[in-house]
Amino acid sequence: MKLYGYFRSSAAYRVRIALNLKGLAYEQVAVNLVNGEQRGEDNLDRHPQGLVPTLETEDGTRLTQSLAICEYLDERYLETPLLPADAEGRARVRALAQMIACEIHPLNNLKVLKYLTGDLGLGEDAKLAWYRHWIRDGFEALEVMLASSPATGTFCHGDAPTLADACLIPQVFNARRFECDLSDYPTLRRIAEHCDTLEAFQQAAPSVQPDAR
Amino acid sequence: MKLYGYFRSSAAYRVRIALNLKGLAYEQVAVNLVNGEQRGEDNLDRHPQGLVPTLETEDGTRLTQSLAICEYLDERYLETPLLPADAEGRARVRALAQMIACEIHPLNNLKVLKYLTGDLGLGEDAKLAWYRHWIRDGFEALEVMLASSPATGTFCHGDAPTLADACLIPQVFNARRFECDLSDYPTLRRIAEHCDTLEAFQQAAPSVQPDAR
Repeated sequence: MKLYGYFRSSAAYRVRIALNLKGLAYEQVAVNLVNGEQRGEDNLDRHPQGLVPTLETEDGTRLTQSLAICEYLDERYLETPLLPADAEGRARVRALAQMIACEIHPLNNLKVLKYLTGDLGLGEDAKLAWYRHWIRDGFEALEVMLASSPATGTFCHGDAPTLADACLIPQVFNARRFECDLSDYPTLRRIAEHCDTLEAFQQAAPSVQPDAR
Repeated sequence: MKLYGYFRSSAAYRVRIALNLKGLAYEQVAVNLVNGEQRGEDNLDRHPQGLVPTLETEDGTRLTQSLAICEYLDERYLETPLLPADAEGRARVRALAQMIACEIHPLNNLKVLKYLTGDLGLGEDAKLAWYRHWIRDGFEALEVMLASSPATGTFCHGDAPTLADACLIPQVFNARRFECDLSDYPTLRRIAEHCDTLEAFQQAAPSVQPDAR
């Protein structure tokens, strides 16, 4: 399999975690988001949105959207499931993943930050305030969801990593990169620290990717 | 089952379509987003993010996040599947759904528009330009995805409605509400027109909900 991604892309980072958790081999191809390679013809051909990641499967099928890719991997490669076995548990893990992927990350990705500073002419302070506002809005709710539920374990759901952790860790990484204060989210931090001890997460980290700079 | 929603919420609209497609009975409880009822204690208790929808199942389990709810319904009620049978088809439908739910809708929902006009002090024109920018950004890519793929049929995927259509129709409804020009998206419009002929979609429309005003 071939993963077209970028070392600092949250969405690509999620897929790397999923692939690593499942022990699947993959080749990485870098699409440099800062140089605008995502809008180049090659990338648009494989990803009409001009984004990353794209996963090319062994038969050449190209898959987009990180959560859809993770679900595909989970259906095709049954070992080390990324979702629990029960329907309620699966709904909870998907909801936690979507709280990040549909509520926090979309507001803070590169193209949105560019619109704020470009089209809207915001300064660096207003951009950072925007970024931190949506992290706080999402992390506060996540902390409540996780701290108040008996389903939370050493990971977001029970004692094995799931799709929810594969979304949480890249979002925590990015929050730290933008120097967000995480002191109000002890459960998130505890889970993140635990994930950091696992090789699957360590080897998915932006700093150790081939295109890291 | 009980659906806590709001007539004009895209996310609640998606779940109504899914419930209707599956022929499932449900009671609706309105949470008035304009009056701020979503931030009230009752709603925060059932949905820590202070959002809608929440689906309360027959055993009292409360589920949040519209796509997670739809997947749950699809797993629990097998009749009229919302996802295709093959893994590649499922990945495609989920990707189309997520292009809307993770890329377009999060940028244009009520709390974001409020931040733009409140915290950032933008005027009505700049707010509308923001709204239409993200509709265009997402719909252009969706149109390419749909128009270029042999997997597209009378619906987003083949000739039966799926989760992708349950996401597309509310987004088209909202785009029209904000008077976005949809002339460049003939495939989206064709699919939307076809969905509009089906009772499951008609009965999920905002205008016919009990709390519509």
